[in-house]
Amino acid sequence: MPLTIAIDAMGGDHAPQVVIAGADMAGQRHPDLNFLLYGDEAALTPLMAGRQALQQRATIEHTADLVAPDAKPSHVLRHGRQSSMGLAIEAVKDGRASAAVSAGNTGALMALAKFVLKTLPGIERPAIASLMPTRRRETVFLDLGANAECDAANLVQFAVMGEVFARAVLGIAKPTVGLLNIGTEDVKGHETIRQAAAALRASHLPIEFRGFVEGSDLTSGKVDVVVTDGFTGNVALKVAEGTVGLYTHHLREAFKSSFLSQLGALLAKPALSALRQRLDPRRYNGAMFLGVNGVVVKSHGGTDALGFANAIGVAVDLARQGTNERITAELRELETSQPAGPQVQAS
Amino acid sequence: MPLTIAIDAMGGDHAPQVVIAGADMAGQRHPDLNFLLYGDEAALTPLMAGRQALQQRATIEHTADLVAPDAKPSHVLRHGRQSSMGLAIEAVKDGRASAAVSAGNTGALMALAKFVLKTLPGIERPAIASLMPTRRRETVFLDLGANAECDAANLVQFAVMGEVFARAVLGIAKPTVGLLNIGTEDVKGHETIRQAAAALRASHLPIEFRGFVEGSDLTSGKVDVVVTDGFTGNVALKVAEGTVGLYTHHLREAFKSSFLSQLGALLAKPALSALRQRLDPRRYNGAMFLGVNGVVVKSHGGTDALGFANAIGVAVDLARQGTNERITAELRELETSQPAGPQVQAS
Repeated sequence: MPLTIAIDAMGGDHAPQVVIAGADMAGQRHPDLNFLLYGDEAALTPLMAGRQALQQRATIEHTADLVAPDAKPSHVLRHGRQSSMGLAIEAVKDGRASAAVSAGNTGALMALAKFVLKTLPGIERPAIASLMPTRRRETVFLDLGANAECDAANLVQFAVMGEVFARAVLGIAKPTVGLLNIGTEDVKGHETIRQAAAALRASHLPIEFRGFVEGSDLTSGKVDVVVTDGFTGNVALKVAEGTVGLYTHHLREAFKSSFLSQLGALLAKPALSALRQRLDPRRYNGAMFLGVNGVVVKSHGGTDALGFANAIGVAVDLARQGTNERITAELRELETSQPAGPQVQAS
Repeated sequence: MPLTIAIDAMGGDHAPQVVIAGADMAGQRHPDLNFLLYGDEAALTPLMAGRQALQQRATIEHTADLVAPDAKPSHVLRHGRQSSMGLAIEAVKDGRASAAVSAGNTGALMALAKFVLKTLPGIERPAIASLMPTRRRETVFLDLGANAECDAANLVQFAVMGEVFARAVLGIAKPTVGLLNIGTEDVKGHETIRQAAAALRASHLPIEFRGFVEGSDLTSGKVDVVVTDGFTGNVALKVAEGTVGLYTHHLREAFKSSFLSQLGALLAKPALSALRQRLDPRRYNGAMFLGVNGVVVKSHGGTDALGFANAIGVAVDLARQGTNERITAELRELETSQPAGPQVQAS
């Protein structure tokens, strides 16, 4: 079934070149995709030259406006509706596209997505979610920075959204869910997460809630979904990325340190390439705005064409699996089973 | 100058074997150390056999009590004063030892340290600090879990303690300090860290405050001291450890994947050993309880003799450099320059 994706062609550090190349790559992977490319026609048209397949599936929708990387969300809400980012989201609202993808300003994208598309029924605040590589399979991690401060009800909603995503998109039959804390004992952490844990335990949700998990469990694969507030999640994500970078740096230095180790690196080259690919951040590119009433995916601003193509792939998965419809159904179930709404005061 | 270190010989996953072997190793590195070993004499005496050098510098102080790994701090405060952990801290209070080292229950150790030794003048709450490897030199990171929730004044005090530590122990002339946040712009994060940043900017402290840093800066070495609350710090530390473990796991698998890569690993073995050593968590073992009126160092519970010896080394450095005296002097300075105390309401 053909699917139309709205693309903010002007967002990201290397836009529009990387965006166009990424869309072309995604089109080759998913032959039934169509694109609405929002951006400056004069900049985009030359980039389409020689890309016959992309020309056939893409329509350029001209706008000269774009959202600056450092623009404040409040400013963008007032003045950015006609920008390439704003129009891409508008296309989802109008039903002209099934999803929007942007590598631009995260805060602005979330603000526009919430304002234009609203949130799903039962969700107060959307969260940013992404997949993390672990020793077992991939883990869904949220919130990665949409909400610096969260209450217990927010965390419970994040758990529901993450769990439905793991089932719908990753195809895990009974995903397990953990709340990120500084220890696994009940007394650890602060009041908000203890309340959220109590609410998840008391609820009749079909969630395999495994209680508290620790920072090390983000890579151990102990649970399929790790839930936290946007402050902790953003720091954790960037610490993990930074640590991979530090390790890679030292590994490279180690291989350069002697003739024998250079030779060793040469012999192990295919294996090391496989390793690099396994931990490649581009493979995990494409953060999902779960809880928004429409599919919006944020690509890393500094990614390349491969990374942007992967972000489009995430949008395709979310749209095809009807993730939002499933989250809504699950939350309705939650309200039916608990007439007073999520019971977050129990402790 | 001889220095006496009080050791909780019964704390940690592999106590007392690893503790005794670690003390022996530390004694060989620092020939003017003496030890007071608190623990079960019947268990410790056989472990001393054959360790002539350690026998000469160590005195066993018998106690049958020990702190269980899962004991609650409140329980330990009431019943654990005569335990190997409690007596080691008591020795610091009495002036019989210059520092205490334990690989036991962190919460209990902090509770006993605060209760018995009290905090330094001007410090409301001690913090747990450790060194992290970066692309440049080591970074001081605190709080690693003593305080799940912190106010702006706590964070300002952590900044002072971390900065003095970097100067006194690491020998950095003008250490730079950053507050961990989810972006470097002033508007990012939550009210508490914005208040702490404003207070640090407004203060007359001789601190090179560089504003907000992100999770990736923990490994970039952008600043010498990274300050955060104990919840975020604990998660960040464990995410970094978990990521190193995941990378090492995949690297090992990659080398095993073919004959050529096995040969490559063999040739690069010395270089890879150097890499492993560089990122070896044992090298960074020994978390400091900064802000306690006495030197207390926490070793990782699961470490080996080398790691425990490193934790003793940290205690030696802290005691020799007079870190606590310097922190106290700095905080007195802070109060003199700002008669109303740290100005944390400015924003």
